[in-house]
Amino acid sequence: MESTDKPATATEAAPLQPAATAAEYSALQVGLRVLLFAACVSAAVVMGTAKQTEMVSVPGFPPTVRVPFTAKYSHSPAFIYFIAAMSVTGLYSIITTLASISVSRKTKTILLAFALFDVVFVGIVASATGAAGGVAYIGLRGNNHVRWNKICNVYHKFCRHIGSAVAVSLFAAGLLVLLSMISTFTLYKKIR
Amino acid sequence: MESTDKPATATEAAPLQPAATAAEYSALQVGLRVLLFAACVSAAVVMGTAKQTEMVSVPGFPPTVRVPFTAKYSHSPAFIYFIAAMSVTGLYSIITTLASISVSRKTKTILLAFALFDVVFVGIVASATGAAGGVAYIGLRGNNHVRWNKICNVYHKFCRHIGSAVAVSLFAAGLLVLLSMISTFTLYKKIR
Repeated sequence: MESTDKPATATEAAPLQPAATAAEYSALQVGLRVLLFAACVSAAVVMGTAKQTEMVSVPGFPPTVRVPFTAKYSHSPAFIYFIAAMSVTGLYSIITTLASISVSRKTKTILLAFALFDVVFVGIVASATGAAGGVAYIGLRGNNHVRWNKICNVYHKFCRHIGSAVAVSLFAAGLLVLLSMISTFTLYKKIR
Repeated sequence: MESTDKPATATEAAPLQPAATAAEYSALQVGLRVLLFAACVSAAVVMGTAKQTEMVSVPGFPPTVRVPFTAKYSHSPAFIYFIAAMSVTGLYSIITTLASISVSRKTKTILLAFALFDVVFVGIVASATGAAGGVAYIGLRGNNHVRWNKICNVYHKFCRHIGSAVAVSLFAAGLLVLLSMISTFTLYKKIR
């Protein structure tokens, strides 16, 4: 970038500066969106593979009578919503990653689109995290007031899956907030 | 605004145009943020007043033995989080409403601040809605797989409160998404 020895290239170096910034910005966007994709897919897969069969006692029978009973994610609508939300967000992250890579020139419009849609997906991912987290907390601690028994003292592996998936989706929600902020801030810098 | 009869005011009319747009924008912002405040406060109040005492049978005793039992929001951590989130968002909406009213000139910086913070509050409100909605759904339908009994067949009034609060907070989340989009889009229009 040393343009002191060649004064002829100084006129070319000036318009390169915003392009370099745009490229850096684009690289950051692509990196974060790939990370978002990984987070969404892993959250959905970890939640989807949450399945454990244990021998549990049946109410109405003596405690020695135990039957195999399976806990899986599809038993709770909150967990089904979680997987749907993570899948949709994963798909969105693929589309936006490809858009970040291919569209390097029309940054203004693409920044606007990113900033607008990212907010919607912040809402989707945060609500899915909240719903799954709220149900998972009941599974972990139970609720004595309404006699909802905890299940994580029996289904350890199942609960580890649920907990991990919720933690990863919380990370994904943070990433989306960051991505939306970056898009907005880059729009702002273009004004000044 | 008819400047045809007075050509001298035509030079003054031109710079007035962006100010009028900014004023219109500010009025929309103020209106939506006041609506957001109303939604957050009503959601928090409706959730906070969710309390109902009913005579319920006790397990281990014959069904004729019934004791008074109270269902209230504080029995669930998800509902406590919901009230906390709505209170914080209500406070935020007061601050941003005052900022929208007082700062009519420095719109660029204030738009950026709104666009950045609104996204964070979209996440907070959406996660609170998700958590409360997830727990409320178990209360409404129960979950046979883990033997969590439904409670809304006994606590009708309590469940109406919870349901209304969740519906209003969903509306508040939509408002925040809209507000964030308006801020971002106004920033975008300033570039062109």
